[in-house]
Amino acid sequence: MRKIDLNCDMGESFGVYKLGIDEEVIKLITSANIACGFHAGDPNVMDRTVAMAKEYGVGIGVHMGFPDLLGFGRREMDISSEDLINYCIYQMGALQAFCDKHGVEIQHIKPHGSLGNMCVVNRRVANAVVDSIRLVLPDTKLFVIPSGEIHKAAVENGLSVVLEVFADRAYTKEGNLVSRKIPGAVIKDSAEAAEHVMRMVVENKIKTIDGELIDIEAQSVCVHGDTPGALEVIRQVRAKLEHAGVEIGPVGRWHKTELKLHDR
Amino acid sequence: MRKIDLNCDMGESFGVYKLGIDEEVIKLITSANIACGFHAGDPNVMDRTVAMAKEYGVGIGVHMGFPDLLGFGRREMDISSEDLINYCIYQMGALQAFCDKHGVEIQHIKPHGSLGNMCVVNRRVANAVVDSIRLVLPDTKLFVIPSGEIHKAAVENGLSVVLEVFADRAYTKEGNLVSRKIPGAVIKDSAEAAEHVMRMVVENKIKTIDGELIDIEAQSVCVHGDTPGALEVIRQVRAKLEHAGVEIGPVGRWHKTELKLHDR
Amino acid sequence: MRKIDLNCDMGESFGVYKLGIDEEVIKLITSANIACGFHAGDPNVMDRTVAMAKEYGVGIGVHMGFPDLLGFGRREMDISSEDLINYCIYQMGALQAFCDKHGVEIQHIKPHGSLGNMCVVNRRVANAVVDSIRLVLPDTKLFVIPSGEIHKAAVENGLSVVLEVFADRAYTKEGNLVSRKIPGAVIKDSAEAAEHVMRMVVENKIKTIDGELIDIEAQSVCVHGDTPGALEVIRQVRAKLEHAGVEIGPVGRWHKTELKLHDR
Amino acid sequence: MRKIDLNCDMGESFGVYKLGIDEEVIKLITSANIACGFHAGDPNVMDRTVAMAKEYGVGIGVHMGFPDLLGFGRREMDISSEDLINYCIYQMGALQAFCDKHGVEIQHIKPHGSLGNMCVVNRRVANAVVDSIRLVLPDTKLFVIPSGEIHKAAVENGLSVVLEVFADRAYTKEGNLVSRKIPGAVIKDSAEAAEHVMRMVVENKIKTIDGELIDIEAQSVCVHGDTPGALEVIRQVRAKLEHAGVEIGPVGRWHKTELKLHDR
Repeated sequence: MRKIDLNCDMGESFGVYKLGIDEEVIKLITSANIACGFHAGDPNVMDRTVAMAKEYGVGIGVHMGFPDLLGFGRREMDISSEDLINYCIYQMGALQAFCDKHGVEIQHIKPHGSLGNMCVVNRRVANAVVDSIRLVLPDTKLFVIPSGEIHKAAVENGLSVVLEVFADRAYTKEGNLVSRKIPGAVIKDSAEAAEHVMRMVVENKIKTIDGELIDIEAQSVCVHGDTPGALEVIRQVRAKLEHAGVEIGPVGRWHKTELKLHDR
Repeated sequence: MRKIDLNCDMGESFGVYKLGIDEEVIKLITSANIACGFHAGDPNVMDRTVAMAKEYGVGIGVHMGFPDLLGFGRREMDISSEDLINYCIYQMGALQAFCDKHGVEIQHIKPHGSLGNMCVVNRRVANAVVDSIRLVLPDTKLFVIPSGEIHKAAVENGLSVVLEVFADRAYTKEGNLVSRKIPGAVIKDSAEAAEHVMRMVVENKIKTIDGELIDIEAQSVCVHGDTPGALEVIRQVRAKLEHAGVEIGPVGRWHKTELKLHDR
Repeated sequence: MRKIDLNCDMGESFGVYKLGIDEEVIKLITSANIACGFHAGDPNVMDRTVAMAKEYGVGIGVHMGFPDLLGFGRREMDISSEDLINYCIYQMGALQAFCDKHGVEIQHIKPHGSLGNMCVVNRRVANAVVDSIRLVLPDTKLFVIPSGEIHKAAVENGLSVVLEVFADRAYTKEGNLVSRKIPGAVIKDSAEAAEHVMRMVVENKIKTIDGELIDIEAQSVCVHGDTPGALEVIRQVRAKLEHAGVEIGPVGRWHKTELKLHDR
Repeated sequence: MRKIDLNCDMGESFGVYKLGIDEEVIKLITSANIACGFHAGDPNVMDRTVAMAKEYGVGIGVHMGFPDLLGFGRREMDISSEDLINYCIYQMGALQAFCDKHGVEIQHIKPHGSLGNMCVVNRRVANAVVDSIRLVLPDTKLFVIPSGEIHKAAVENGLSVVLEVFADRAYTKEGNLVSRKIPGAVIKDSAEAAEHVMRMVVENKIKTIDGELIDIEAQSVCVHGDTPGALEVIRQVRAKLEHAGVEIGPVGRWHKTELKLHDR
């Protein structure tokens, strides 16, 4: 039986500023990438988001980002490895404390925005992120873009990885995301997105932007929840997956079971 | 045999900005109050400071402050209890991660600046700090001004406290610190400060600003290390204490032993 | 013929965070209080908001606040007069530059949030704000709560003031705003708010929360525009005022004409 | 008679954090590049620095930087042109307000740190900086590295430029600064630096790191003042220049005279 995790960015509000409709999205996903106050989020938001994730049995992830609230962590910054390792450690610790308060565990790590993009192509940056995880949360799963530099760095350093695909993004024939600057990069139609996800999860195939079919392995599907339209995408994706008999659950839970099977 | 802890604020540098002469002070003290990025400090500084504290066997403390780098946490802010609890949790978590990295434990908590001052007189604020500690680091010692609101709040909530006195500050006959606005509030002469500490630690007495002798109990003496003059104060205090046969060590270590004795 | 100005807080978005529906509100008001990056707003938002205000002929105001984005400037901070004067100067200068770019002038100043509240009751804080204006924008009008400390400080220092009332707030018989903690403090019904404004603007009376009628003089009415409901309040207020023949316009424009008449 | 301007970064302190020995340096230089709160500086520091510059007749410059206090503006950030233009406008306005307070004018603009470095090689970034100046301070002089992209962008857009050389940096035979990563990039010996400056100012030559002599034109020499050693460099440079009969003064003042001569 197939299994899949649905992850979504959450806890991105800040002070009076509300971003996203987390209280709706949380009911539909299985893993939450929670901002930790660098690119978004604040201590109150982190507390509420961890509490919500606990209530709905959703896996908790550290969504680590650049120290750039003004740019929402979406601008490349040329940060030294020492700086980056310590920024990541700081953010992991901050979220860990709220998990301690609520008696839950951190399930995964996911680099946000430009940090995430740089991790795919820049080995030095990927190494820094991997090193930070090894130093303080070595048993946590790292979400990676398959075949990206961070995938390689994680595997070489013995971290457990989760292969991630995107519900609403088109792919090149090399298996990379099509740049947002190119028309057709973002799949806005919910039915099309659901079909895209089904193909990736059930058939292990991606139909690329050029119409070719290539192989893919997916353990978690990234969805978005910042607009009512995005919410509808998640609903359709879930419905299709459930109808096809795919089990939807936090990667932390079913992964452990799988690992046990492999251990025999 | 008498025992005493010497604590000092550390890790207050930020980015290119250097504050204090931590690398000298660390050799002379036994407990370090480490800033966590709200009123001072940054991830790199926290990492280096925890590493230094480990190297010299110095007890590590969370120096929690208001989110006001521009004001160094020295300005009163009217913060709700929910906000304050979460700000404290966030800071504790961030420092904990660096302790995890270096394989050391957090020994104590000390509120910084205006937060510290408000904790002495404002029970709501004191309660928020105490609550935050109970939620994530309940076994950690809380440094308190004897008889302040936070002392009471801590004891009523079962937290372990450390009674703190100041090497370079004059006291009123009520046992409170003389306001810095009043002449004579700060003891600048190193010999006088050393005598002041000796009287508190060995004789359990304070000579108040009016010349009276009142009772005091001291488990940790707060010293400062931001100027060469301040460094000389610490040296003289240490020399006098050692000459009198007082054991100087981190309150976390000797406190545990004492507690064992009390348990019999 | 009666004249009135309608002012509203604007430009409070920050980075990806959107606050308010400025592009709708701007069409209905005559003066905009623009955040300057301390409690809210950022350079891009300031630029766009000044451009919008110019397009719709809306008077531009500096909405000065505490350096507390996390608390939206709504938390009291105990800031020295020197600090406060310089924070205000900095914010005025930043907005002035965007006005220079767009070839428009600053019409008014309005302290935001807790700074505004403190200006009503704390003469030292009021003086600091007044001093900052005298130093860099002495010909600009200062919005004041009638009879507050800042009203007195402004008049004593020769600043031109604009008397401000609130469309959606109840008043005490002393002419002060009823605390938000007391039921009935905020008028949510749009028809009631419109009637409240009419009474203040046309009859120069306030019906207090206790039902008494007291005298009031109003030159600008503060409205809010952060919810669709708030927008409806503005629409009803405008409709009633226009129907009664009251001229609605930026206080900067009609005030100048009035002053000329007074000069004869 | 030869003329030269000596410029230095100033006003880089922040809150309790003191950087540099501005009160000594100000007596030796003729133009001050003043930080504006993005990469360094705060409103109090800006106020004091403008006051000091006025007192000593030193030309005032906007030292514009990236919004990265933690990295001191020394990290490359991939910022859109719209963002960058507005960040620059904001910083110019903030400094202008303090100049208004003190009754002085802004003489020049100088991009700081990584923004400055990017301006030399990245035409898009250079254009954004030039555009921001044209929009709000078009009559101000822009300090440029000779032949850098920003030099070209400024000239093409009609801005007045000041050609800048560095007292303590080695040059390549192409006239570029030798990267700090290469040994010999920084000239630490004060006599050597003074000779280097003399050659550039009096002989219009640079001896490159390879020993070749190339042509250079210099209108302002950048010196540093953050260490006692740096201070000694400035003193020697001044002494040598004065001995050779070179007039040392703010570029804004003598430049105007020159321009008048050219106008005939």
